[in-house]
Amino acid sequence: MKGLWLENKQLQLRTDLPTPEPPTGEALVRVLQAGVCNTDLELLRGYYPYSGILGHEFVGVVEQGPKELLHHRVVGEINAACGKCYFCRKGQPTHCENRTVLGIVNRNGAFANYLSLPIENLHLVPESVTTDAATFTEPLAAALEIQQQVAVDSDKRVLVIGDGKLGQLVAQTLAITGCELLAVGRHREKLANLEAQGIKTGFADAVINRTFDISVECTGNPEGFAIALQALRPRGTLVLKSTYAGKLTIDASSIVVDEITVIGSRCGPFPAALQLLAQGKVEVEGLIQARYPLSEGLRAFDHAQRRGVLKVLLEMN
Amino acid sequence: MKGLWLENKQLQLRTDLPTPEPPTGEALVRVLQAGVCNTDLELLRGYYPYSGILGHEFVGVVEQGPKELLHHRVVGEINAACGKCYFCRKGQPTHCENRTVLGIVNRNGAFANYLSLPIENLHLVPESVTTDAATFTEPLAAALEIQQQVAVDSDKRVLVIGDGKLGQLVAQTLAITGCELLAVGRHREKLANLEAQGIKTGFADAVINRTFDISVECTGNPEGFAIALQALRPRGTLVLKSTYAGKLTIDASSIVVDEITVIGSRCGPFPAALQLLAQGKVEVEGLIQARYPLSEGLRAFDHAQRRGVLKVLLEMN
Repeated sequence: MKGLWLENKQLQLRTDLPTPEPPTGEALVRVLQAGVCNTDLELLRGYYPYSGILGHEFVGVVEQGPKELLHHRVVGEINAACGKCYFCRKGQPTHCENRTVLGIVNRNGAFANYLSLPIENLHLVPESVTTDAATFTEPLAAALEIQQQVAVDSDKRVLVIGDGKLGQLVAQTLAITGCELLAVGRHREKLANLEAQGIKTGFADAVINRTFDISVECTGNPEGFAIALQALRPRGTLVLKSTYAGKLTIDASSIVVDEITVIGSRCGPFPAALQLLAQGKVEVEGLIQARYPLSEGLRAFDHAQRRGVLKVLLEMN
Repeated sequence: MKGLWLENKQLQLRTDLPTPEPPTGEALVRVLQAGVCNTDLELLRGYYPYSGILGHEFVGVVEQGPKELLHHRVVGEINAACGKCYFCRKGQPTHCENRTVLGIVNRNGAFANYLSLPIENLHLVPESVTTDAATFTEPLAAALEIQQQVAVDSDKRVLVIGDGKLGQLVAQTLAITGCELLAVGRHREKLANLEAQGIKTGFADAVINRTFDISVECTGNPEGFAIALQALRPRGTLVLKSTYAGKLTIDASSIVVDEITVIGSRCGPFPAALQLLAQGKVEVEGLIQARYPLSEGLRAFDHAQRRGVLKVLLEMN
């Protein structure tokens, strides 16, 4: 089969990859479409060691698996857990100590014709959800993880920093809570996308320091972190949603003096994300900026790496 | 009156200071004894701008004030709040936007014969608590703040990093919860002090990474922070108890991937601290390493600045 193979910071389109043979408990999924995520770009830059097929945001059709999934469209949670370790027993499989992660850690990913994932990781895509929309399930779930960790309601003043792919989804999911929301970024047209959905936006200078209860950092750069920290009231909460290339230098004394909580946030609940998509409560299709067939996967990556680009999709057939 | 006056990173013993004249709502306190804290040393190094009398850990006797306090020993909360701002109305006076802070922000401190504080800040010292022990009320309250912010119980594995003054109090207060506790530091004799109270201790190499639910950083240095972060299980909580001179460089990606919570922790509940002292549940007098009269205050500071020194007290009479 074809696939985008990463090795030594080099991505190559290979046509000689074996179709996966799912072990017991896993299903074979024919990939329909997949999205390029910032994590893919970071893996390509070598921030984490990984060799194999890239990709973890996908929609596919089950070709081998249990009857209730067979020939249906599915999306898949990316952490394949052992089921036995401390975290699995505690009901936190996304933190399984022995986990493999689709296209990220020791498990071939979704930028290929086929992938294999544990059956329990797969979720049926509701009929009413388009394949385009369903491709956003994984990052949308990651955005929803914030609300699993921090109570967000209409009494809260919330700031989202970053108008990229993740920031857009985070802002939309937070808007649904009725909180007093401001989303800031650097790109007029991306902010306009949020404004069109009734979300208040601005550039960084729109942030009044020390007035927010919650700030969500979606830029992955130190400037974003500094804005997020300064924006908070004492006892406020800073949600770190982006991973950071290398180290981050922070003003730790202000965290102590103002008793700030900083919380890291990663993968989230797929069922809730699919439900939001089915209800039409988030607008994701406007985030798609380009589509490439898998055979032009390297061009797709070039495109995705340009500054300010939102979602680039790969189509497998 | 006499007092230790800080100005332009210079500490001087002055004998020409006016005795405070408490405004309405404040009491005049004759200071009996005061403790030198790391924050005092940081103020002296110029980490925060402050000019005035230093000192915020004290025991005194009320000489002008309401009948129920008059001629009694008191300790005092250090944040003098406005009572009107957002945080005061929210019941969080330690975060008052207009606060002055005894010996730290715009309010003369305790290294003097007299001080003035709002009456509501003062707490009677129980008869059974010695003046030596009561001098530790403020840092002990700060140690107890951790338990106001994070649930600590016998199911939790907890690491305290730092065997200095604050680390010792933090470890002792956490031990009372019955949690599975390890305290690490660099000083054999200080760790022995904790061992004598039944607390398991070790050097940094005793820490097994990724096995603790909670870690408490009491060193104020980047190495301590790194140990605290690496020690945590996914979804663990790192309590930042020390302020940091300058910036701190951290591995933010591990905070995101492991969904770690970092929480800053500052001033805590005085009544709970006084109760622990009255019940004899913490051993503080062993932390006293030297006593100086106020007239030898500069020597006291020289002593307190030596590496590895625990509590240095100033006696005012």
